[in-house]
Amino acid sequence: MTNTADTTAATTTTDRTGVWLIGARGSVATTAVVGAAAVGAGAVAPTGLVSALEPFAGLDLPELGRLVFGGHDIDETPLAKRAEQLAAAGVLPSALLPLAAGALAAAEAEIRPVGGALAEGRQDRLIAALADDIRSFRSRAGLARVVVVNVASTEPRSDPHPAVAALETLDASLAAGESPLPYSAVYAYAALQAGCPYVDFTPSAGARSPALDSYARAAGLPYAGSDGKTGETLVKSVLMPMFTRRALTVRSWSGTNLLGGGDGAALAEPSRAESKVESKRRVLDEGLGYPVEGGVFIHNVPALGDWKTAWDHIVFDGFLDTRMTMQFTWEGCDSALAAPLILDLARFTALAHRAGVGGPVAELAFFFKDPVGSALHSLEEQFTVLRDWARRLGAPAPGTP
Amino acid sequence: MTNTADTTAATTTTDRTGVWLIGARGSVATTAVVGAAAVGAGAVAPTGLVSALEPFAGLDLPELGRLVFGGHDIDETPLAKRAEQLAAAGVLPSALLPLAAGALAAAEAEIRPVGGALAEGRQDRLIAALADDIRSFRSRAGLARVVVVNVASTEPRSDPHPAVAALETLDASLAAGESPLPYSAVYAYAALQAGCPYVDFTPSAGARSPALDSYARAAGLPYAGSDGKTGETLVKSVLMPMFTRRALTVRSWSGTNLLGGGDGAALAEPSRAESKVESKRRVLDEGLGYPVEGGVFIHNVPALGDWKTAWDHIVFDGFLDTRMTMQFTWEGCDSALAAPLILDLARFTALAHRAGVGGPVAELAFFFKDPVGSALHSLEEQFTVLRDWARRLGAPAPGTP
Amino acid sequence: MTNTADTTAATTTTDRTGVWLIGARGSVATTAVVGAAAVGAGAVAPTGLVSALEPFAGLDLPELGRLVFGGHDIDETPLAKRAEQLAAAGVLPSALLPLAAGALAAAEAEIRPVGGALAEGRQDRLIAALADDIRSFRSRAGLARVVVVNVASTEPRSDPHPAVAALETLDASLAAGESPLPYSAVYAYAALQAGCPYVDFTPSAGARSPALDSYARAAGLPYAGSDGKTGETLVKSVLMPMFTRRALTVRSWSGTNLLGGGDGAALAEPSRAESKVESKRRVLDEGLGYPVEGGVFIHNVPALGDWKTAWDHIVFDGFLDTRMTMQFTWEGCDSALAAPLILDLARFTALAHRAGVGGPVAELAFFFKDPVGSALHSLEEQFTVLRDWARRLGAPAPGTP
Amino acid sequence: MTNTADTTAATTTTDRTGVWLIGARGSVATTAVVGAAAVGAGAVAPTGLVSALEPFAGLDLPELGRLVFGGHDIDETPLAKRAEQLAAAGVLPSALLPLAAGALAAAEAEIRPVGGALAEGRQDRLIAALADDIRSFRSRAGLARVVVVNVASTEPRSDPHPAVAALETLDASLAAGESPLPYSAVYAYAALQAGCPYVDFTPSAGARSPALDSYARAAGLPYAGSDGKTGETLVKSVLMPMFTRRALTVRSWSGTNLLGGGDGAALAEPSRAESKVESKRRVLDEGLGYPVEGGVFIHNVPALGDWKTAWDHIVFDGFLDTRMTMQFTWEGCDSALAAPLILDLARFTALAHRAGVGGPVAELAFFFKDPVGSALHSLEEQFTVLRDWARRLGAPAPGTP
Repeated sequence: MTNTADTTAATTTTDRTGVWLIGARGSVATTAVVGAAAVGAGAVAPTGLVSALEPFAGLDLPELGRLVFGGHDIDETPLAKRAEQLAAAGVLPSALLPLAAGALAAAEAEIRPVGGALAEGRQDRLIAALADDIRSFRSRAGLARVVVVNVASTEPRSDPHPAVAALETLDASLAAGESPLPYSAVYAYAALQAGCPYVDFTPSAGARSPALDSYARAAGLPYAGSDGKTGETLVKSVLMPMFTRRALTVRSWSGTNLLGGGDGAALAEPSRAESKVESKRRVLDEGLGYPVEGGVFIHNVPALGDWKTAWDHIVFDGFLDTRMTMQFTWEGCDSALAAPLILDLARFTALAHRAGVGGPVAELAFFFKDPVGSALHSLEEQFTVLRDWARRLGAPAPGTP
Repeated sequence: MTNTADTTAATTTTDRTGVWLIGARGSVATTAVVGAAAVGAGAVAPTGLVSALEPFAGLDLPELGRLVFGGHDIDETPLAKRAEQLAAAGVLPSALLPLAAGALAAAEAEIRPVGGALAEGRQDRLIAALADDIRSFRSRAGLARVVVVNVASTEPRSDPHPAVAALETLDASLAAGESPLPYSAVYAYAALQAGCPYVDFTPSAGARSPALDSYARAAGLPYAGSDGKTGETLVKSVLMPMFTRRALTVRSWSGTNLLGGGDGAALAEPSRAESKVESKRRVLDEGLGYPVEGGVFIHNVPALGDWKTAWDHIVFDGFLDTRMTMQFTWEGCDSALAAPLILDLARFTALAHRAGVGGPVAELAFFFKDPVGSALHSLEEQFTVLRDWARRLGAPAPGTP
Repeated sequence: MTNTADTTAATTTTDRTGVWLIGARGSVATTAVVGAAAVGAGAVAPTGLVSALEPFAGLDLPELGRLVFGGHDIDETPLAKRAEQLAAAGVLPSALLPLAAGALAAAEAEIRPVGGALAEGRQDRLIAALADDIRSFRSRAGLARVVVVNVASTEPRSDPHPAVAALETLDASLAAGESPLPYSAVYAYAALQAGCPYVDFTPSAGARSPALDSYARAAGLPYAGSDGKTGETLVKSVLMPMFTRRALTVRSWSGTNLLGGGDGAALAEPSRAESKVESKRRVLDEGLGYPVEGGVFIHNVPALGDWKTAWDHIVFDGFLDTRMTMQFTWEGCDSALAAPLILDLARFTALAHRAGVGGPVAELAFFFKDPVGSALHSLEEQFTVLRDWARRLGAPAPGTP
Repeated sequence: MTNTADTTAATTTTDRTGVWLIGARGSVATTAVVGAAAVGAGAVAPTGLVSALEPFAGLDLPELGRLVFGGHDIDETPLAKRAEQLAAAGVLPSALLPLAAGALAAAEAEIRPVGGALAEGRQDRLIAALADDIRSFRSRAGLARVVVVNVASTEPRSDPHPAVAALETLDASLAAGESPLPYSAVYAYAALQAGCPYVDFTPSAGARSPALDSYARAAGLPYAGSDGKTGETLVKSVLMPMFTRRALTVRSWSGTNLLGGGDGAALAEPSRAESKVESKRRVLDEGLGYPVEGGVFIHNVPALGDWKTAWDHIVFDGFLDTRMTMQFTWEGCDSALAAPLILDLARFTALAHRAGVGGPVAELAFFFKDPVGSALHSLEEQFTVLRDWARRLGAPAPGTP
């Protein structure tokens, strides 16, 4: 295994960064492409973009307007049509569409279907074909690096194949014509083989196996995930520390998530919901440090479209064990919550890659429900870690203006 | 003005600390006395007590079970009867009452009526009489120090009298037989004159005037406040940073507070509610750093008894200015939320006093809606400040076991 | 006083009905015009239209698509522009605008400014001028009757002028050049003088004075009101009977209303809010039959635009006086909630007029928070009354197909 | 099959009525016994008792204070101890316990364990043994009639055995030593064989099979059920008609139920929850008349104890298909909600029995989620039906004072 040629060590701020989206025709991807163009052009404020906050000002991050998009998808709806649908549904402002037309067309030209590759009987050949798509994109667009981001539907939960316990056994299994990897890991391995960092915005397995982890470390490729923290869990990540700091004991925490759109439809399948529920569940146990009653319920409500509603009910004990309760309802637009984080993650992961970070990037825990390499679930602590890390890695070289 | 004799410099951990409560017969005070006894005796876990959290373990704080209580009140309901009422209303566990009987009787013996003192025509004599009560308590009980805590009803909002602009003008005004101080400041001045630290758990004026501030600084007496952060604002203090960290722009934040009990009755008077609303309002402007629409509404609902319900509705903008909303409902028991903080504040303020801190203790912002000396409103940041400060001041002397 | 010439007794179903809107350029009026055209043309289902429900099928009600609109307003924004604004804000579906263009233009041509009339120093002349506008509309459009509906902003609450105690004293006061009437009553009197039924969709005074009531009765003109029941109160009108039927005792009912748009701005003025709060308050006392704690709070939140959110918190006693609570949040679009009721009221009031009903129409209580002539607040009971009444009055003449 | 001897035709108001509770040691049963005593003695108002409402005044219903309680249970906790536990948990007022001590002791003496009977291998013998227990109770206490009410835990959902399709096949199956009945039906058949009316307050099968239905009709025994409507569904039964009357189209209705106590534990088993969910689900489809998205989620939260919280989220379309939402949270005490309805049902069913009603009593739909013999789900309509029926049956005989 050699992949030095693929690993790019960038040094100048004029490097261009590519973003390769798994699920490139989905709502989140479309919103990210439109948003990067619109915010990059100054047509709209960078609301929701963490990397545009003051603490990150002056860092050598890829410019939003210069990001280049491509990706894989099995869907074939043209991006421009998708954008129109989102505008009609009130997810994207119609007024931004003309401005983003060029960006949508450029991304459209760089989306590769995966239907053909999936027809490939052998998983090793599928991985190679996907990696080739990414390499071609990078070279054709003259990119210094490409960050691969998985924004596809949550995949069904499955027990890991024994082969993923080590890189050698994984490679042997693949060479033997077996199919040891779930799809998210197929994409992750393709990304790594193409010399690209990989970010998993879903609760899927992705690069989180001993085999792929060791590949990434050896190749000096950062990876991050998993499961973007966009709503209910975001709120949890500030409420849990609140209870802890005030010595209030949480007795139960029950959450109901109603969502429509593609995400709702996917999570209507119990095996996929299980992945999500598991990811959400771990947050509580790790975040509070003790087990609590309750559970998480995910329900598909097509009438909600791209909007999602979460209701959480918390029972806690105060002084002299007096029982009290708190409830919250969060009503957000899934795409508008996720898309800016995709852009943030692409920018910060590019930073990590340029700095030669290999393996899991625990410092990106701020963005995830189930952060790889980190058991930290307090948003403020996560922010401090992110800020300090980004400032260390992203400080402009001395002498640059 | 000399008060050196009053200022006690304690050096040993066997010092006993007194807690003098303004409003000593109220629900919060009663719950604090019962709770200190019950937790001190190990009969119930220290839920809700911040000073009992792990980060403060090993610090040289006054022991809960050794706190000595006394105070002023205009009400004459015996403490034991008040405790029974609270138990009947489900605020205090009935099972703890026998255990706390001794503590209630001891506190009962140290409560002084203020009816007589208030009949005093002159405010300077009233202050002197109140200070005498506190001094007698300290000397009779052989206390190293007494922390005075205001848990009386919120006082009506009023414009400050010109005399409070400086200590000299204040003293002159008092000497001239004028009444330049609102009641909370009368108590604060009495506390300071008795050489005691002063904590204002209400949104009243208390020690927050140039005159009293300069007295406290000169006398080496710490003071803290104001308006204990027990519910809605506690949640605000973690949600505001959440929006900020995620670059989400809050457009409106509307809060409705329903409360019964004495607090509800007091705040049914518009002029008192104004003090509270003002205190709650400032949190948002300072915490977010920009003005938002909305307002705070306080309503008296006697049927809720000692319980209070807050509903907050927040409209915010996400990516591409997509409008989203969040709501929360907080249902808590006012006394059970406030009482442990009273004990925490007494312990931490005793620490400050022993360490010779004079003037406002900004490091106690963690406990307040409108923290004196601090514009910090993020709970995590406040906690970090508190923890580092307490560890610095409270570290056991070298050589102690 | 003679107005027989004005009172039209229609007998055929081919009669055309006019709707004269006070506040004809507002969101509600615009939505009503667009909606009547769209639903009338079959382009969209009659969702929200009570008069289109099965129990009213076959009644001789004016057809939606044949209603003719006109009205008064002090605003000068063209209706078409207003409709575009509403479409941009997601209140009206953009797709319906082309279809409704003709209807908007037709209504635009029939809107009269009131600026000039208001400049009139004398209220009697103002009334006459307004009545002339309505008469001209009716005769120009060849209408069998015109229902005047007040959808203007809530007017400030004021004590009634002594002159309104009787028609004679009112007419004398007006003849003496006095201004005894609030604006809603000026419009109501103008409507009546023009021989038109009058509906007050706001909590304003309108026709509810002894003077105007006796005019309406004498002239055989029906009037209805007041304050359309579109959200929070609608829910109250089914929850109150629920508590009553189950013998559950309501202890407190607190409501918070957040609203933006023109209505929010108007109600930001305390004196206007007072009218609304009073109207909402009476519902509870009359609907439950006993006084309850709590209150109603109305807050202007411009960020909500045409949307409104109500949160209600109810404390009630169950068996053995166990205390329980219920909360609800209602998030609706004000115009979409009000507009169909305007059309319903126009249709039902036309029915009443044709049938010769004079004075208050208590049977329309179903539509109002503070129903004139009725203390009935149970929605089901109101519906039964409405249905039976409409069937009695609206049954097609024998022999019609 | 002859059971005339068992069927009592009462004629005088001095008849005493027994209430035989399946699950006689549970929270609901205990609360019913305490409550009947307390309300009967005038110690507390009849809050929550429908049969005590004004529309039923003067009817010849069994007096609350003269009801005689007994029942079956597998649990062996003494009733008095259970009552103390409920008082400690705030479900029952402690102050009522002394007053109810006699009633608890009397009921205690009439509770029969079912352990022995269950050990019976043959279901026919079990039924006979249970029926004997009920007969003995009736004769020992000299009761005119006994209403059997099932307040046991919800039983797991199961497909009906083919034998229940007709009374003959059921009796043959039982005679053959088979076990064709779920436990709720075993109790129902025992009740009927003992000549007693049967009420199912759970979503279990109970008497709802062709076999038992024909037995009840032939024997002139009324039965009612199923699944008491105590919280979320009660609210649904007024909100559904609200949407219908206003022509608003419900698009989705999602409900989350959090409950602790025995009910929560039972419903933590998926097969039992299924019975409940099915019962709750049918309400929506039948109540609205068209299918809606969404679902019902039941979660066991032991920390809630006897309290339950339901959160419902409703998406609906208004005029021009504008999408809007409503949410509600219901926080109630299960026992305090259910117990008075048990007493109401016992009283009304006694009335039906005395009047010779045989078979399902559709007029009791007011009390149930899934009313036998009725597809009516509007609370107001159900109340009207109940009231008219009760007045017809319960009118005092002419000549009585």
